Amino acid sequence: MAQACWGCYPWLVLICACAWGHPKSLNQREDVRNCSTITAVNTTAQLTALREQMLTQNLSAYIIPDTDAHMSEYIGECDQRRAWITGFIGSAGIAVVTERKAALWTDSRYWTQAERQMDCNWELHKEVSTGHIVTWLLTEIPVGGRVGFDPFLFSIDSWESYDVALQDADRELVSITVNLVDLVWGSERPPLPNAPIYALQEAFAGSTWQEKVSNIRSQMQKHHERPTAVLLSALDETAWLFNLRSSDIPYNPFFYSYTLLTDSSIRLFANKSRFSSETLQYLNSSCNSSMCVQLEDYSQIRDSIQAYTSGDVKIWIGTRYTSYGLYEVIPKEKLVEDDYSPVMITKAVKNSREQALLKASHVRDAVAVIRYLAWLEKNVPTGTVDEFSGAKRVEEFRGEEEFFSGPSFETISASGLNAALAHYSPTKELHRKLSSDEMYLLDSGGQYWDGTTDITRTVHWGTPSAFQKEAYTRVLIGNIDLSRLVFPAATSGRVVEAFARKALWDVGLNYGHGTGHGIGNFLCVHEWPVGFQYGNIPMAEGMFTSIEPGYYQDGEFGIRLEDVALVVEAKTKYPGTYLTFEVVSLVPYDRKLIDVSLLSPEQLQYLNRYYQAIREKVGPELQRRGLLEELSWLQRHTEPLSARAAPTTSLGSLMTVSALAILGWSV
Amino acid sequence: MAQACWGCYPWLVLICACAWGHPKSLNQREDVRNCSTITAVNTTAQLTALREQMLTQNLSAYIIPDTDAHMSEYIGECDQRRAWITGFIGSAGIAVVTERKAALWTDSRYWTQAERQMDCNWELHKEVSTGHIVTWLLTEIPVGGRVGFDPFLFSIDSWESYDVALQDADRELVSITVNLVDLVWGSERPPLPNAPIYALQEAFAGSTWQEKVSNIRSQMQKHHERPTAVLLSALDETAWLFNLRSSDIPYNPFFYSYTLLTDSSIRLFANKSRFSSETLQYLNSSCNSSMCVQLEDYSQIRDSIQAYTSGDVKIWIGTRYTSYGLYEVIPKEKLVEDDYSPVMITKAVKNSREQALLKASHVRDAVAVIRYLAWLEKNVPTGTVDEFSGAKRVEEFRGEEEFFSGPSFETISASGLNAALAHYSPTKELHRKLSSDEMYLLDSGGQYWDGTTDITRTVHWGTPSAFQKEAYTRVLIGNIDLSRLVFPAATSGRVVEAFARKALWDVGLNYGHGTGHGIGNFLCVHEWPVGFQYGNIPMAEGMFTSIEPGYYQDGEFGIRLEDVALVVEAKTKYPGTYLTFEVVSLVPYDRKLIDVSLLSPEQLQYLNRYYQAIREKVGPELQRRGLLEELSWLQRHTEPLSARAAPTTSLGSLMTVSALAILGWSV
Repeated sequence: MAQACWGCYPWLVLICACAWGHPKSLNQREDVRNCSTITAVNTTAQLTALREQMLTQNLSAYIIPDTDAHMSEYIGECDQRRAWITGFIGSAGIAVVTERKAALWTDSRYWTQAERQMDCNWELHKEVSTGHIVTWLLTEIPVGGRVGFDPFLFSIDSWESYDVALQDADRELVSITVNLVDLVWGSERPPLPNAPIYALQEAFAGSTWQEKVSNIRSQMQKHHERPTAVLLSALDETAWLFNLRSSDIPYNPFFYSYTLLTDSSIRLFANKSRFSSETLQYLNSSCNSSMCVQLEDYSQIRDSIQAYTSGDVKIWIGTRYTSYGLYEVIPKEKLVEDDYSPVMITKAVKNSREQALLKASHVRDAVAVIRYLAWLEKNVPTGTVDEFSGAKRVEEFRGEEEFFSGPSFETISASGLNAALAHYSPTKELHRKLSSDEMYLLDSGGQYWDGTTDITRTVHWGTPSAFQKEAYTRVLIGNIDLSRLVFPAATSGRVVEAFARKALWDVGLNYGHGTGHGIGNFLCVHEWPVGFQYGNIPMAEGMFTSIEPGYYQDGEFGIRLEDVALVVEAKTKYPGTYLTFEVVSLVPYDRKLIDVSLLSPEQLQYLNRYYQAIREKVGPELQRRGLLEELSWLQRHTEPLSARAAPTTSLGSLMTVSALAILGWSV
Repeated sequence: MAQACWGCYPWLVLICACAWGHPKSLNQREDVRNCSTITAVNTTAQLTALREQMLTQNLSAYIIPDTDAHMSEYIGECDQRRAWITGFIGSAGIAVVTERKAALWTDSRYWTQAERQMDCNWELHKEVSTGHIVTWLLTEIPVGGRVGFDPFLFSIDSWESYDVALQDADRELVSITVNLVDLVWGSERPPLPNAPIYALQEAFAGSTWQEKVSNIRSQMQKHHERPTAVLLSALDETAWLFNLRSSDIPYNPFFYSYTLLTDSSIRLFANKSRFSSETLQYLNSSCNSSMCVQLEDYSQIRDSIQAYTSGDVKIWIGTRYTSYGLYEVIPKEKLVEDDYSPVMITKAVKNSREQALLKASHVRDAVAVIRYLAWLEKNVPTGTVDEFSGAKRVEEFRGEEEFFSGPSFETISASGLNAALAHYSPTKELHRKLSSDEMYLLDSGGQYWDGTTDITRTVHWGTPSAFQKEAYTRVLIGNIDLSRLVFPAATSGRVVEAFARKALWDVGLNYGHGTGHGIGNFLCVHEWPVGFQYGNIPMAEGMFTSIEPGYYQDGEFGIRLEDVALVVEAKTKYPGTYLTFEVVSLVPYDRKLIDVSLLSPEQLQYLNRYYQAIREKVGPELQRRGLLEELSWLQRHTEPLSARAAPTTSLGSLMTVSALAILGWSV
């Protein structure tokens, strides 16, 4: 799945929200709304109540971001404060309320939706950045004015950028630990989730939590600043460390939690009542020694951190996702700051068990996707499938797979021009019929107990245009060229991602999103800090990343070909530590859309080897399950491609391959 | 020329000094020296005198860096303070003197040289970073100790890193504007250069200085922070702005200067006595209006800046290379900070006149290099050429070219294993004979009134090994693949430089330096901020950059193939703003070292087109000059290459090309 914000955490939303482009209304006055089309709820009452709360705190303005206290990519219902106060339910947007005005900033994906959903209490602003918000604030609030915010909903970086800008202009940014929206929301606010927190079965864990704790402690000892504790703020950090899961966050099997892992204690902050006695026993929670997990209440984290810092301690944090609410209570000299905690870095490299688990989940996921593609091939021509029913259908197929626990993100099932929209998802009410005359893009994934999956295929059941074939083939070449790249160990993804773009660049095409992201074992579908973006850590053996070039023709069609790949050691002619990728997604591309004449002999050979791997890995599973129709579909769609298959077939193409072989090309 | 530090300015030296590798003695205790081999001058007297100066300032330590007040890459003799105080004359190294100790930090290129040149007053430290220096300082000076430094020799960044680290450890970093080494050096210190400062002939200037001043002022007006002045600290900024040159710095036609360009005045700080009456007239210096240049004394810059900041002003600076000595006198709220000044950014994009000038200089430079290569081909087999005499010879050939004004850097003329050493240069005493049994690397360039050149060729006059041919060809493929890359406008060099490495990576080879740097019109040979490194600005039409992949086999040979290329618009099949490179260096590669069988049809075609361009552009010049032997050499060396030329020649190769043509490959 291409990331909305190209970051697992929303801290990157602002940077890249416009990357996809088409901000067609930029020339219009950006804050003028047409209120005549409003279909929204009335927000007058909650705004009045919020302003009363602001008054008691002597605030001129209050900022309401769209994240939770863990800088999560997806947030639970109880954290949808910005949606509740504005009426706009899109996933990205920042609201600011002053004494007299209320304003929302969101990116081009959501302009129409925000226009429709917000009543005329709200201004809509279309250029999203701290700079734009602060500029607006300066015109709205007086010198000396106080701007309130909930420090748990601000990353350290976003706090700093607001703070500096407001201070420079003689306004004050005021941290208020009680969330004012929550006070107004009151009993209507959805309760905090309360489902059981459970331990993964042993078979699905790469290591025991005790092994992981020991590993992290040993990293603490080796660190030159000698931290005495690691603070885990991201929900997947705690889930990973203890091999615990729950279902607090949509698409993510996490639970609200923090961990303070010290050199002598393990303190897990969560709702204690959610642990069964078995889980408590599993956590060794009845004792007090350094390998016993002490459960403390989730709400106690800030006070506990503050108390801990009174000692001769140093707390190691990942500054990219620790909230300012925790950061501000730790004295600077007691902080060990890295972009990512050692848990985040360790989790990024999967051990051999975790690799095997993730690979196994991808085989079953391929079965589900292949069943869906085969089903579409039969049913689309009958005119009975639409984007929404299709999305449901692929979820049903996944649901029949072992260890399935739900989709890993909202399925992007997009036909024709809808596939050119970033992050389009059909709804029961709004969707398009699938047709043999249009291309169809499916970007979907599953959460399985053994792994998280994410795959995109684009297909056409009729006769694609020459341009569609060319664009598709160039996207495919990008996928292939990056997948088979050999590169030195510790290369940053950022410096190699252009290999996925070159074939498009060659003819003046490109795509406006990132090229890939890390992925977890029954964890985040966008798992930082692995990937091809600025801010990702260097590639290392054992990491998994998606590889997902695309091409989008506004108003016509969209193409994306996404696979998940494991970083593996490359065998090179001369000795050295080199890496390459092993693709673990196992679904064939659409041969109807491949112009074989554009592929080099090396690319063609790579593709045929990949198809062979699909046959070898997925074929037996289909056979075992008696899915013979799908097996036959798979055989047909993974027939080796040859230059002969190109429309420009000629004796020449055969000659080429053999001639190249004679020449000793490394085809 | 591959950059020592991969930065025109030394601020990057520390980051990348170790990139080339082979720090073989890392396991030895790093500060223990063998003083028995010393061949150096005695530094006892100057150290004693320096310590007396330190005493008067109540300093526990004094830091002596290796730069000048303009963060220049090359520095004048009067700025060689670190060399004078230590005895070590290598170009990179930082010295620190305490009451009882004296220590030098330098990178692996200089360990042997520093060992030889420094007496036993000095410790040698081999891990160069602010962190290592501060760690050492903390063991040597007491809490509360004062560490002195000359603020003009510190970039803002380096000041900040020392300041934070020392403050955290309760030591004080103390800015002392009088340089203590200069006080000790006294009358022995070489005088400041005094050669005339002259205006470029009109024919060699891309625009008049008045046009440039107007352009920069218009950028000031458009900037959202509304700066009232731009401060130019880098020597090439002032040289470029006024089209003025002199010879204060080796290899760089600059003069010690600063400029404060305000909205209503032009203040040039330099030694007034160096301007002739014609130049004064050229600068319109007898008046006071906004288009008259007011000359002020070089030494007045700090006071003048300070005086200027008393008004309602804002000064725009390039923070990467402005010295802390100027930065510290500007109140923060009066600063407009960017990495590079608008002069640096504007200078990076050459206008059509500047492009034509730079191209013309490269044609003449090619004549000189071709003469040298043809001369070597005749003379090396006779055993009469060595690295040093070769370097002299190529300089002589350049000296015969019109508008030549000296080499643009110290020639790297390296035979056999010497070419594997980073930045090896032969001396009269120490050099190797050129031989038909070894590869030879020449990295050299010229300063011409119309342009600065920089080119590297690697040749073999006998029978290269298969590995040498393979490595050479893969380096060549890297050069070709990056040179012919089509990429979107505003792409950062950092994300495309891997195309120059891929052919090497494929077999487990690589190189440890950057892939290219900007270059000027009779200015810096390493002109920031253009290039392929972190910190370079995005590529734009009109920029010039070197493209210089290499391969180095320790103890055996070194290969580098470097060309200068202009960024030009690419014509793509589909509309879009795309760029590519036009190579302006015009010297053929060594066909003896090219394994044609490794080249793709596209690469081969590109190479033959390049050879055609060399013939068309340099051929007539050789003809006109009556250099017929060289012309014949050029014809021989630019004969079109075909797959037939490969050792694995077969009918197949011919078939390949035609078959590919049939297939419609874009060969």
